[in-house]
Order: sequence, then structure tokens, then C-alpha cells
Amino acid sequence: MMSQRGNDPVDLVVVGSIGLDTVKTPLAARRDILGGSVSYACAAASFFARTGMVGVVGRDFPERCRAAFRSFHIDRRGLQAADGKTFRWSGVYERNMNSRRTLSTDLNVFADFAPDLPAAYRKSPFLFLANIAPELQARVLSQMRAPRFVAADTMDLWIKIARPALLKVIRRVDLLLLNDFEARELTGEEHLVQAARRVLALGPRYVIVKKGEHGSMVFSKHGLVLVPAYPVDEVQDPTGAGDAFAGGLMGVLARGRRITPLTVRRAMVYGAMVASFTVEAFSLEKLRAIRRADIEARVRQFRRMIRC
Amino acid sequence: MMSQRGNDPVDLVVVGSIGLDTVKTPLAARRDILGGSVSYACAAASFFARTGMVGVVGRDFPERCRAAFRSFHIDRRGLQAADGKTFRWSGVYERNMNSRRTLSTDLNVFADFAPDLPAAYRKSPFLFLANIAPELQARVLSQMRAPRFVAADTMDLWIKIARPALLKVIRRVDLLLLNDFEARELTGEEHLVQAARRVLALGPRYVIVKKGEHGSMVFSKHGLVLVPAYPVDEVQDPTGAGDAFAGGLMGVLARGRRITPLTVRRAMVYGAMVASFTVEAFSLEKLRAIRRADIEARVRQFRRMIRC
Repeated sequence: MMSQRGNDPVDLVVVGSIGLDTVKTPLAARRDILGGSVSYACAAASFFARTGMVGVVGRDFPERCRAAFRSFHIDRRGLQAADGKTFRWSGVYERNMNSRRTLSTDLNVFADFAPDLPAAYRKSPFLFLANIAPELQARVLSQMRAPRFVAADTMDLWIKIARPALLKVIRRVDLLLLNDFEARELTGEEHLVQAARRVLALGPRYVIVKKGEHGSMVFSKHGLVLVPAYPVDEVQDPTGAGDAFAGGLMGVLARGRRITPLTVRRAMVYGAMVASFTVEAFSLEKLRAIRRADIEARVRQFRRMIRC
Repeated sequence: MMSQRGNDPVDLVVVGSIGLDTVKTPLAARRDILGGSVSYACAAASFFARTGMVGVVGRDFPERCRAAFRSFHIDRRGLQAADGKTFRWSGVYERNMNSRRTLSTDLNVFADFAPDLPAAYRKSPFLFLANIAPELQARVLSQMRAPRFVAADTMDLWIKIARPALLKVIRRVDLLLLNDFEARELTGEEHLVQAARRVLALGPRYVIVKKGEHGSMVFSKHGLVLVPAYPVDEVQDPTGAGDAFAGGLMGVLARGRRITPLTVRRAMVYGAMVASFTVEAFSLEKLRAIRRADIEARVRQFRRMIRC
């Protein structure tokens, strides 16, 4: 049962995947833990904004995972339950946690996912199209009335198999997030700064290039801004770091008044700090254990680290 | 002929290799260009401090390379000319400039190098032991009267073949520079933050981990500071970036009054900017084309990029 009322507004809508992940790192392994781009992004955003989730789960989706969503007060009116099994992903991280290998992907109910936004979501001023097929991103975008600010994430798979659809989405968003590898793949340009400039020419006002443990860069016509990653003491599981970064960033933007290069930069720092907490434990475990004040404290610490 | 007089003081002494490099990148190739750790480090330091060079060249060392040293007003009283050929290195950079392969190394006169410091150098308050064999670093260190601040760089080769000698040097320096790979090699610790902490426990007050295009981090008992790299438009040749970073850093420290976490951080930013100019052309070409004011302008631009 969803606790939200039919017309309660949200600040931010996030669409993406919800999955049960089986993750192996050099240090530990976990089976069927809550994962997926929308799970991480919504949990991260929920510290800052009223966040609505759009996704699909199967009949087997465990109560413990629903409880996790509830604990973040994520609005779940856009969460569909379909006949079948929940999307599953399993992967293994190499020794230094920088590269991962996918062992299996079972789309299950995700294969027939056709997002249909509740009326209250369609009026949301902010929309984050987390990593799903560009066709689904476009479908959600078309259901929105007049969003003030739209961001999209993507992955190498869509660059390879759905480039035309992806390029269409990119033209319609204000902010595109992609990692360094994807920026090179999308543009054929090896040099990262030049690759990012080419992505900017595809339409978005802001392009954020994520570099994992090396931080991120944002490109706009106003120039380039660097945001290093927070150096965590121990990475338990890097899964979802990029989604949490984007979710935190969008949550901060959705609660602010204006979108300017300065507010985007500030939001990126918050996103980076939420991401740094995320990787300190598996799934959403660490995010469940912290409060907004912990994020604020780390933001202050981070500012001391990079002040020059 | 050395133009410096016998007793003229220097602020900073740098010892390391001088070589003729043959470099191939995906974009271009050059043969027998001026290279070596001391060449890059001294050129970088010379923007900020009176810098003395300790190294050896062969009888074949070209006048154009001596002219390059002169153009930076590097003090060359510690430059030896030995019978034989100058040290030579050749290497090739991969497509993304992040990894390089050594094709050949000919030590030549460098094989019998026994640094012997001029009297004026022994009184220098600052010393930078650039990348050479730890035994030679120790020899230079022992010739110094009472240096206020000593930094050392190293490379993976010495970690492998001269670990005990290297550890002895590390115990005697105030600041150790090494790259991320070397920090892991030296400590056997995969996680970079933890590896750096272990290096700190080996003796130095400051440990700087260089991450190439991803910037650098400094560790001390006062905490951790992050300095992203400046995102250059086009990397022509990454050779010497780490040496220029260290040289610029030491030059700034040598001209300052006190060594504190704040002045080290500030010096790292200057080092990073000099390094960013260095990679924009082969050898010392770009550094010869710029002035101190260009470095200051880039420092200001960089501060705007990372302000948050």
C-alpha cells in the first residue's frame, strides 16, 4: 500500500531500474540485495527533496526492500508491481574496485516495463531519467507536463545498441550525466575535455562526466568545474555510486530556487558526498544509517580538503 | 661555462637524471629531445626560486639543451660533463596517453654517476631528490649541511630492486612523492588512502600521491588535501609532468617563509599548473614559452574551477 495521497506534489521524479543484485567484491559477497539505478538515486535524493519513484518490481520483491524505500520516505505511487520476477543483476569487482564484470542480467518484469506516471508526478518540476533504455526515458519525458529541469544518465550499452534513440533524449534534457568511458564512446573522441565539449554540442546545457574514484567534471557554456571524489577510508561496494551521485545532485537542485553554474556545482558536491557514503556499505545500508547532518558534516570536511 | 659565481647561494638544489628522450605519442614523435627528471624539475622550480641542478651529461650533450637550461636561469654548477654518451630513454604512449611503454634505456654516463655537490649547494635550505637510484639520493643528502626541507621522488623500479635503500631515504625526508601505483607497490595495500597512510608511517611528514591526469593528494598528520589536475585542452606529451609538478611545488616552498599544511597545499596547486603547461608540448618547449604571469593566471582560473 502506498501511503501518499493522490494529489500530494513531489519535487523530483526519478525513473530507472529496480533490481535484486548479487555482488562479489574482493572483501565480501552479498546475494539478492536491493539495487537498481532508481533505488540508489531516490534514496540519495530523499535527503533533500520529496522524491517520487517510477519503476517496476516482480511479485517476488521482498518486504525488506519495500521497507528500505519506506525508510527514506520515497514516494512510491509510481512503483508498479508486475506478474513475474524482479530484475536481477550479478557482478564481481576486481581487486582495486575500479573495474567490474557482469556475471548475469535477468530482465524479468523489466523486459515489458512501460512506465506510466501518476497524475501528481506529471506536474513535478524536476525529472531524473536514470539509466534505462532511451526509449523508456523518452516515454517518461513525454508524459511530463512542463518540467523545469530534466537530467538523464545513460550507459555504454545504449550507446552501442540504441544510439539514435539516445541522441534524441540527449537533445531534450538540460543535464546529461555519463562516465569518462561513455563520453569517449559516444563521441569517438579520446581526449576527455574535448569529448565532453562535443557532448555539450548535442544539446544539454550541462554535461557531467563521472570519473568514479577520481571525481567528476561539469561542462557548460560558462566553463568547466572540477569536483574531486571524497576519499573514503574503505570502499565496501562501489555499486550505485554514480546513481547516488546523480540522485543527491538532483535532490539538492530540486529543493533550491534557481539553476545556475554555482548551484549545479554546489549540488555536485552534495551528490559526491552522498555517493561517498553509499560505497562504504552494500546496497542502501550506509544511506539508511546516516542523516542529513552527516552529509552536511562531510561537505564541510570536503571543502576544507580542496580549499586552495 | 657556468655563469654562476662560486659562492652565490641557491634556494633549492635538485638532483636527478638528465637525458635525451625519444618519444612517440599517438599524435607525433620526437627524437633526442631534452628530458630527465632534473631537467623538468629545475625548469619548473626556476619560475619561483634560485635553483641549482645536480646531474651528469655526456660529451655529446647538445648545445641546444644547454641553451634550454640557460634560458631558465638554472644554476649549473652541479652539472657534470663526463666522458661518454648522455643517458637516453625512449618510450611510446598509448592512445589515451595514460600508459606508456619504455622501448629502451641506455644509462651511458649515468651508470657511473657519483654526485658531488658544489660548496654553495651544500648550504641550500631546500633539496629535491628527483627520481634516481636511492643510493645516489642518500649520497646527496649526506653532503648537505642542514637542509630545512627535503623532498624525494621515486619510481617502481627502485621499489622492486632497491627497497631497503629506498626505505632508508624515505625515513630521512620531509616529503615523499610517489604515484598511485607506486604507493600500492611500496605498501602492498590496494586502497590508496590506506596505502598513503602506511607510507606516512615510514617517516615523512608529508606524502603526496600523484594520480596523473586525476590530480594529487597530500597526506599528513593534519589530514588529507585533494588537488585535482588542471584539465588541459590537448596533451602533446605527458613526459615529465610529475617532475615538473614536484619542481614547481618545491620552487614555491623554497621561496616561501614557512612550511605548513596550507603552504604545501598552495605549492601543490602551483606545481599542478606548471605540470599542466608542461604536457601541452614536448620536452621543455611550453615552459620556455610561458612566463610566471601565465602560471599565476592559470592558478586563478583553477581556483575558480574548484571553488565550492
